[in-house]
Amino acid sequence: MLKAKIFVQLKPSVLDPQGKAVSGTLSQLGFDTVQSTRISRYIEIVFAENDVEVLRPKVKEICDTLLANPNTETYHFDIEKVAES
Amino acid sequence: MLKAKIFVQLKPSVLDPQGKAVSGTLSQLGFDTVQSTRISRYIEIVFAENDVEVLRPKVKEICDTLLANPNTETYHFDIEKVAES
Repeated sequence: MLKAKIFVQLKPSVLDPQGKAVSGTLSQLGFDTVQSTRISRYIEIVFAENDVEVLRPKVKEICDTLLANPNTETYHFDIEKVAES
Repeated sequence: MLKAKIFVQLKPSVLDPQGKAVSGTLSQLGFDTVQSTRISRYIEIVFAENDVEVLRPKVKEICDTLLANPNTETYHFDIEKVAES
């Protein structure tokens, strides 16, 4: 079994209103050293596969076609082995 | 400057409907080796602070009071130095 650990983040040029909201709330709560907040998605997918090099292009296709919005988001991922349970 | 890298995940016992939806869609798209999907939030907060040991309890408080729902979610975080720009 292999696990893909995928980060989908807004491009730096895209405003993150949810992050701005968290930064604003933190300042109101007294956390006055907060400079910036970015909120992203982190997705773990477990596959019944054993070959990382076979899986890598599939994960890329999954990110390109389903998980990330190519207009506003970027992604990166790692693949690791999962201990069989 | 320090950056907190925070993962907020559903507890394993809590159903992740968004993850189920992604798994279902992937299998319809022909990715038939997908076993499970979990979708989490990944939050980066940059602080104008330099002492990791001072910052750590603040980040914990931020997670406990704002970022994570203690009923359904768990979190973990790392703190790393950010190169001054």
